[in-house]
Amino acid sequence: MFPKNAWYVACTPDEIDDKPLGRTICNERIAFYRRSDGQVAAVEDFCPHRGAQLSLGSVCEGNLVCGYHGLVMGCDGKTVSMPGQRVQGFPTINAYPVVERHGFVWVWPGEAELADSAAIHHLAWAESPDWAYGGGLYHIACDYRLMVDNLMDLTHETYVHTGSIGQKEIDEAPVTTKTEGEHVITSRFMHGVMAPPFWRANLRGNGLADDVPVDRWQVCHFHPPSHVMIEVGVAHAGKGGYDAPAKDKVSSIVVDFLTPETGTSMWYFWGMARNFAVKDTNLTAQIRDGQARVFAEDTAVLEAQQRNLQRHPGRRLLMLNIDAGGVQSRRIIERKVAAEDPRRLVA
Amino acid sequence: MFPKNAWYVACTPDEIDDKPLGRTICNERIAFYRRSDGQVAAVEDFCPHRGAQLSLGSVCEGNLVCGYHGLVMGCDGKTVSMPGQRVQGFPTINAYPVVERHGFVWVWPGEAELADSAAIHHLAWAESPDWAYGGGLYHIACDYRLMVDNLMDLTHETYVHTGSIGQKEIDEAPVTTKTEGEHVITSRFMHGVMAPPFWRANLRGNGLADDVPVDRWQVCHFHPPSHVMIEVGVAHAGKGGYDAPAKDKVSSIVVDFLTPETGTSMWYFWGMARNFAVKDTNLTAQIRDGQARVFAEDTAVLEAQQRNLQRHPGRRLLMLNIDAGGVQSRRIIERKVAAEDPRRLVA
Amino acid sequence: MFPKNAWYVACTPDEIDDKPLGRTICNERIAFYRRSDGQVAAVEDFCPHRGAQLSLGSVCEGNLVCGYHGLVMGCDGKTVSMPGQRVQGFPTINAYPVVERHGFVWVWPGEAELADSAAIHHLAWAESPDWAYGGGLYHIACDYRLMVDNLMDLTHETYVHTGSIGQKEIDEAPVTTKTEGEHVITSRFMHGVMAPPFWRANLRGNGLADDVPVDRWQVCHFHPPSHVMIEVGVAHAGKGGYDAPAKDKVSSIVVDFLTPETGTSMWYFWGMARNFAVKDTNLTAQIRDGQARVFAEDTAVLEAQQRNLQRHPGRRLLMLNIDAGGVQSRRIIERKVAAEDPRRLVA
Repeated sequence: MFPKNAWYVACTPDEIDDKPLGRTICNERIAFYRRSDGQVAAVEDFCPHRGAQLSLGSVCEGNLVCGYHGLVMGCDGKTVSMPGQRVQGFPTINAYPVVERHGFVWVWPGEAELADSAAIHHLAWAESPDWAYGGGLYHIACDYRLMVDNLMDLTHETYVHTGSIGQKEIDEAPVTTKTEGEHVITSRFMHGVMAPPFWRANLRGNGLADDVPVDRWQVCHFHPPSHVMIEVGVAHAGKGGYDAPAKDKVSSIVVDFLTPETGTSMWYFWGMARNFAVKDTNLTAQIRDGQARVFAEDTAVLEAQQRNLQRHPGRRLLMLNIDAGGVQSRRIIERKVAAEDPRRLVA
Repeated sequence: MFPKNAWYVACTPDEIDDKPLGRTICNERIAFYRRSDGQVAAVEDFCPHRGAQLSLGSVCEGNLVCGYHGLVMGCDGKTVSMPGQRVQGFPTINAYPVVERHGFVWVWPGEAELADSAAIHHLAWAESPDWAYGGGLYHIACDYRLMVDNLMDLTHETYVHTGSIGQKEIDEAPVTTKTEGEHVITSRFMHGVMAPPFWRANLRGNGLADDVPVDRWQVCHFHPPSHVMIEVGVAHAGKGGYDAPAKDKVSSIVVDFLTPETGTSMWYFWGMARNFAVKDTNLTAQIRDGQARVFAEDTAVLEAQQRNLQRHPGRRLLMLNIDAGGVQSRRIIERKVAAEDPRRLVA
Repeated sequence: MFPKNAWYVACTPDEIDDKPLGRTICNERIAFYRRSDGQVAAVEDFCPHRGAQLSLGSVCEGNLVCGYHGLVMGCDGKTVSMPGQRVQGFPTINAYPVVERHGFVWVWPGEAELADSAAIHHLAWAESPDWAYGGGLYHIACDYRLMVDNLMDLTHETYVHTGSIGQKEIDEAPVTTKTEGEHVITSRFMHGVMAPPFWRANLRGNGLADDVPVDRWQVCHFHPPSHVMIEVGVAHAGKGGYDAPAKDKVSSIVVDFLTPETGTSMWYFWGMARNFAVKDTNLTAQIRDGQARVFAEDTAVLEAQQRNLQRHPGRRLLMLNIDAGGVQSRRIIERKVAAEDPRRLVA
């Protein structure tokens, strides 16, 4: 269950630099490619001639050329030409609004006339030289909402990520959740704790002592359709915590774009944006590698959870205080889905 | 959708030399084996005792012996004997008409009483010392009719086989299609073109210059149930093209037996028969290797097309002039299926 | 189709020594683990919080701790605690009666209140220093009843296990089957035959000549729900056969616990218990390796049989005299299933 009238991250720009990319987003099979002017285009991955997969073709003079019989498809879903054929009567295929922005390619899998690129999630860090970013992509065989739950409740770090970012104090710190319009915020603050390995490495990376108590914070932000940005950081204890001056803390934004592939699978664009040591590309690579390992731990847990839930479709799950972030986020998702199709309100 | 009252290529003789072969043809699971007199036999791959797969057994004194409890199956589907048992009352399993001819094993998966071995497709080149043949077998996850389309419209060579037999001029040459009874012929002639790599190699293989313009032809012949023989060749330009004397041309017959496995998968027996340098076994191997690479390119395209069509079962495809060969061939297939079961006319 | 109110072998003790084990038994997904007192526990593999797979977690102070959010599950299916939560109202999950005995872990996947550990199959050899045991575990994609058939009719040894324990005389020796209550016994005795390779090795292993005629026996015992113990052995001919003195024979018990996973897959705990050269661990390993190879041959046959039967669900199989052991054993299974749910009598 997902809203289709929304901007989702479809891919990173490098994925379409050399050749078209076929990817399913919200059950839509889409061929993405880069036109000669550098603009990204997205059309249904289905040649109107005989149903070949257009993304197996090539880009020629900015148009997508079917790799079977050479039909030339335009970015509007209308056939431009085909050797030896008059193409005026050819059926049109879907074209999808698509925008490259903030280092990602965004697609609108729903009704094209409703797409407004101004609604694309703004990523201030992506446009500022004071920030560095590194990330990756995982395919996960689970409903993307299980990942929303996961990210809006970081209690799981203690258990899933024992060796990196987990620590017992996460459990013990109270968590607060609030919804402001379509924005859900879950916050947790820990005071005077020892930093876990991932954060000790970051402290050192920023030239700070890693063997003294710190104040640690996690502020999770959900925005529809399914973006979760998490402010995370540690400051030397007593320096102001979240509000400490830059010299006393290390902080980052954990970036999570959850793009549904089907009802039971998703594309997980994950990464980390940081505003310290931004020119240190080794540090960027090191953080990305660490994050890749940590997030792979979630993958195993979520795929097993998905299988368990599919086997027991009727079973009610608990909604505890720690689940409030996921519960409130899902409520926003449900409202958006219902707005698209009121009949789905009940389902 | 396939006629069952027809002779299909089931396997090549070497596949049953050492042991039985289990293969599904037109949804029939069949055990093929060679009897002691060298004759091929084909029975249902299901032991009447407990349902074991007979093709996992062995051949003993010309009979198929079940590898589970030793039931001895005759080539007529009647149990011959079983250790310690009286077998008169054992149920009979299906036996299939099967003939070894022209270097292939042919099976009739439909009603046995209608099978007439005189109707087996005659392959003159297979019986003549003036011809050499080499080929292979691919399993492809697509409706065999997608391969009929593919072979009865070689326009795709330009796009799918860019580096071997494709060339831009294929697109530009007009194609003509006609049906004579149950025989569909699609022809394309190109004049004064440069030969693509595959044909340059063949010209050299036949001692002809490969750097001069040639006339090139492709004449595709469909015969039911699903055999496509394609006369292909190049002659030095101006020597008569298709009708040029042997010393000025190289020509071959592309051999394609498309045997349905199920409704969405097929066995593809492909090969090439040539009437030049017929004793050059190195050339035979070289052509086969080249063809194997070329035909593997089709496999990827067709399997993706099959997946696309299954996702959009209701969508109408275009039928252009270049598709006429496939369209007319499918019409013959449909008539034969309807003749077997009038109720299927509508489907 | 399987009775659920029965003791099945779930795993061997070593499988849960280091971490929990998730295994499906009779369609029940179960997490097995060892408590701090060494006792084995078994609960549903479904965390009541959000449906995570409990067996991916860890054992802490004798309780199973969910690897997602740290819910602590008790061996009775009741949540013990969860960080920051009051758990009194949490739903209870299933707990399964489980007992470690005779070198195996036994589980009762049905109604817990009916479980009586006194009903666990008694294995005298497992408790005696005069016996040695070695074995293994296979996962097989077939209805466990096909394996019951297989083991209660050793005629197949001649065909499936040609190079090890098969010999033509098996076929030729009469087989007798009788049912005593819920115990089915199939016996076959061969007199004055040459031992096949597996038994020649065992004769040598026990210091006996392997090149003289022997009397050979196979006595198969089925006990519900699906345990098959087979007394097998050879004695130098004329020394009394099955009843020969220990110095003139080698004998073993083939141990087969067939545990349904689903309706079409099973866990096969196989092994061999012997009462000669019991301290020779090399011999134990050698026998186990040989048995592993022999029983892998059955796997291929049974999985192909299962596929064949699923394709032809309506087809009636033969029930010959050699099948009497399987037929009578299945009848006992059917009675037990019907006793659990009279409506299933018809199915």
